[in-house]
Amino acid sequence: MKKPLTIWAVGGDLRQARLARLLQADEHLVHIYGLENAPELPRPCETGLDGVARADCVVLPVPVRGEGGFLNAPLCPRRLELSRILDALPPKGVVCAGQVDGALRAMAQERGLALHDYLAREELAVANAVPTVEGALQLAMEALPVTLHGSRTLVLGYGRLGRLLSHRLAALGAAVSVSARSWADLAWIEAYGYTGLFTDGLDGHLAGYDLVVNTIPAPVLGEERLKQLSPSCLVLDLASRPGGVDRAAAGQLGVKVVWALALPGRTAPETAARAIRDAVYHILQEQGV
Amino acid sequence: MKKPLTIWAVGGDLRQARLARLLQADEHLVHIYGLENAPELPRPCETGLDGVARADCVVLPVPVRGEGGFLNAPLCPRRLELSRILDALPPKGVVCAGQVDGALRAMAQERGLALHDYLAREELAVANAVPTVEGALQLAMEALPVTLHGSRTLVLGYGRLGRLLSHRLAALGAAVSVSARSWADLAWIEAYGYTGLFTDGLDGHLAGYDLVVNTIPAPVLGEERLKQLSPSCLVLDLASRPGGVDRAAAGQLGVKVVWALALPGRTAPETAARAIRDAVYHILQEQGV
Amino acid sequence: MKKPLTIWAVGGDLRQARLARLLQADEHLVHIYGLENAPELPRPCETGLDGVARADCVVLPVPVRGEGGFLNAPLCPRRLELSRILDALPPKGVVCAGQVDGALRAMAQERGLALHDYLAREELAVANAVPTVEGALQLAMEALPVTLHGSRTLVLGYGRLGRLLSHRLAALGAAVSVSARSWADLAWIEAYGYTGLFTDGLDGHLAGYDLVVNTIPAPVLGEERLKQLSPSCLVLDLASRPGGVDRAAAGQLGVKVVWALALPGRTAPETAARAIRDAVYHILQEQGV
Amino acid sequence: MKKPLTIWAVGGDLRQARLARLLQADEHLVHIYGLENAPELPRPCETGLDGVARADCVVLPVPVRGEGGFLNAPLCPRRLELSRILDALPPKGVVCAGQVDGALRAMAQERGLALHDYLAREELAVANAVPTVEGALQLAMEALPVTLHGSRTLVLGYGRLGRLLSHRLAALGAAVSVSARSWADLAWIEAYGYTGLFTDGLDGHLAGYDLVVNTIPAPVLGEERLKQLSPSCLVLDLASRPGGVDRAAAGQLGVKVVWALALPGRTAPETAARAIRDAVYHILQEQGV
Repeated sequence: MKKPLTIWAVGGDLRQARLARLLQADEHLVHIYGLENAPELPRPCETGLDGVARADCVVLPVPVRGEGGFLNAPLCPRRLELSRILDALPPKGVVCAGQVDGALRAMAQERGLALHDYLAREELAVANAVPTVEGALQLAMEALPVTLHGSRTLVLGYGRLGRLLSHRLAALGAAVSVSARSWADLAWIEAYGYTGLFTDGLDGHLAGYDLVVNTIPAPVLGEERLKQLSPSCLVLDLASRPGGVDRAAAGQLGVKVVWALALPGRTAPETAARAIRDAVYHILQEQGV
Repeated sequence: MKKPLTIWAVGGDLRQARLARLLQADEHLVHIYGLENAPELPRPCETGLDGVARADCVVLPVPVRGEGGFLNAPLCPRRLELSRILDALPPKGVVCAGQVDGALRAMAQERGLALHDYLAREELAVANAVPTVEGALQLAMEALPVTLHGSRTLVLGYGRLGRLLSHRLAALGAAVSVSARSWADLAWIEAYGYTGLFTDGLDGHLAGYDLVVNTIPAPVLGEERLKQLSPSCLVLDLASRPGGVDRAAAGQLGVKVVWALALPGRTAPETAARAIRDAVYHILQEQGV
Repeated sequence: MKKPLTIWAVGGDLRQARLARLLQADEHLVHIYGLENAPELPRPCETGLDGVARADCVVLPVPVRGEGGFLNAPLCPRRLELSRILDALPPKGVVCAGQVDGALRAMAQERGLALHDYLAREELAVANAVPTVEGALQLAMEALPVTLHGSRTLVLGYGRLGRLLSHRLAALGAAVSVSARSWADLAWIEAYGYTGLFTDGLDGHLAGYDLVVNTIPAPVLGEERLKQLSPSCLVLDLASRPGGVDRAAAGQLGVKVVWALALPGRTAPETAARAIRDAVYHILQEQGV
Repeated sequence: MKKPLTIWAVGGDLRQARLARLLQADEHLVHIYGLENAPELPRPCETGLDGVARADCVVLPVPVRGEGGFLNAPLCPRRLELSRILDALPPKGVVCAGQVDGALRAMAQERGLALHDYLAREELAVANAVPTVEGALQLAMEALPVTLHGSRTLVLGYGRLGRLLSHRLAALGAAVSVSARSWADLAWIEAYGYTGLFTDGLDGHLAGYDLVVNTIPAPVLGEERLKQLSPSCLVLDLASRPGGVDRAAAGQLGVKVVWALALPGRTAPETAARAIRDAVYHILQEQGV
């Protein structure tokens, strides 16, 4: 990657503002557009998109599309139409955006632009799991009357979140059980020293936990299973919409559920911004910039 | 220890109420006095101290002395005079209290009572360090824009709190430096895999940290040292009054300081109550009850 | 899985003898054939294969094929022809074997037998990684004049062995670097707290290590790279034949190389036998036995 | 500490030779005496002690006294009388030695010499615990047919060795129980996540372990307790002479016992030499050299 590059950060929330700061700290020539209400910007916002056509790289926010089909730009006093933004972008520059949908991709192709979706990159998903998992620990500590040390915890799912979460919980002194769906995953769970359970066979094994954390994006904690939990058990749901817990049933049963969404940006925005920066750099390297 | 014992829980805050619940869960005959406003009591409060003379054990709160020299009983609508409480206590029973001062000890001796100070017991101090340290992690996670994972942290002091805190921080993936005052402590610090520094030689080595946690009850972070911290560094002070940080200087310098007091009761009251229960049981065992 | 099952253990080495003991300890009806010279057999060897046709399950060794195409049965005083063994096996029973080659699979099909290769199962590969990695620690401790605690170690490859090995090394207090080939793996490596390196970019980054462990089954440590190692660096090669280290070059350069093969059976035969037992049980469950 | 110092290394075994190398690597002027048969000396041995009177520091071995009251110098072809060595030493220099007995101290005082016993320094005892504990892991791995991962282990004693050993065993995935004698130590044991037992109350709780490691220099494992161990349990005795295990009874009962003495020098001589070097430097600093 050559240095310095001319990089535009367009739209987005506080993470985008932090990203702009990080890019400037790496000595790139940073331009900012559509973040007028962000505090501590590294430099003033541009008043127009005139110069963006000469950028080496443009970073659009995650998610790139906000309400009503406009650019996601909650810190901008104006509404920014996605089509106008795309019209201004440099055909030769590298355009990065988070969570690109099919319609937007089509709009970009019409204009001869290649949109690189950094949120689709595996390394960003892994890097985001780190602040997600630590945010989950924070929420659990806040909500539990006992320490995680010495607590009995159950993690549902052994994907990215489940792996790191079980590692951190065990490190803090919790007794960790993890559910998964294959013998191979159960072998991994035991190789790391946790107790393995089959997700399909959880019924009858749900009592006695202080904390159950769901990472599976499927309805795994329905009424029947919620009934089996200990009365003081806290349920933390990390699965994205619609989550994995029957919230209505939980409410009726008096089970305390915390639904934790968008943790990286909320609990560790600087770490989240660094992860996006790294993914953007990887894209630039792959594009030979 | 025989079972069931007749145990009175007198005065105190929510921890005392939880303690009463734990004792009852262990199948002791529990009487409660002076906790009228506590939620979820395991049984109604006594209206008087008549039966207390027949108790095997009486547990007074920590600290036993509240404002104005009365019993520490914030959940009781009446003021309870310590002298009257002591008058009612059983000379043969085991009386436990937290943080007993000389005047109170003299008052007890006049009445032929032996007061056992559970807060003076080393095992309770260690057991309390567990929720204190986890509460400190929680506060740090809440205040930091970065994850503890990957952060550079400095722990001042390698006593009870310093040892457990450095263990937990390292377990979460922080790079941990610890300051201490002896070669032997530095050898322990390195045997556990942290970087050791002499507390007296910290000057010039304070930049570059994301988090500094003080556990030393002495003025270790004065103006000169605060100036050396990185602008974004968070300081967490776990030392009891008056703390170890020059708060006025920190305010002027713009250093963010979180002063964390009474963490066990605040962040993990159930764990804190269990630690008191265990200490009371140890006293009873030693007294041959 | 029903109990008790009639299970035959046929051929193999000490692991197979231990496996027979484990199966008997689980209250199965165990028959042993071709292990005459093994110590501590749970029951005497059968003199013939007459009863095997009524077995619910037959376990052949790993590897099933020994020298000269006979059954791998080093503890049997006679040579056992694979074709004759197969002739005797029960068509309805579950036949398990380790490392089944194409010729053997064809021979089995001719006889209407389904051979289940337990070594091909992912969970056994993971379970075997546990004793392999611990055996590697043992060999490194034996060969190094320094403790792993405080040592600088480099693990080449982040597959099964690399993941568990880096976890154990870090747990013992080593400074751990790991090489991998993708940004995603590097994100995992950092999420677990190790330092990540690209395998392709190792040149120029190989000095300063006390220990380098190769887990990649490809020639990654050729002469040019071996030259860059520190003079006292130990190289441990866990890759199966032909290994990943240019042994001739290492010899000329005076680099100490330990080539560690078949570690599970050598350093933790009981753990290795348990892993096979579990895989056999999984096969039986899947076959509805 | 000024540099370079003139330092003499006199007598001793391979550790002393390594120490001489380390001191030279730190750019001190090193003289060696009485190590003629050591390989890889950083420079030739002196033929006499003439120059030693001008040394800033003289390092004698650990233990300083060998068989027959001579200097401990197994790599020297001649016997070296301690009195003659002491006669030659510089009254103003700093003389360091390991394991100084009363008679030797008196001999030194007659000559106006101050002997600094580095083995008596707490930081060296802690630093030596690191290779001792890792050596114990190595011996256990070599002798056990199962991995430490997943094994049930009991550590007797929670002093220096017990603390580090339980930490390393847990890190490798063993289930760790530790015995100690005070409630405070049991609180520490639980704060680190292990299971605590009273040493006095071990009877009836000794079955079911794969490994028992004794660190207590007292007869804790007599016949009655050895009888309670599981048949396959390995006992590792780290206590110095006479050890804590009734070896005769163990032999009769068929309990496998490994008595591990002098582990640092045997299993990690370089680490052991570094620990002595550091202790010598600390002495020099304290003496204002």
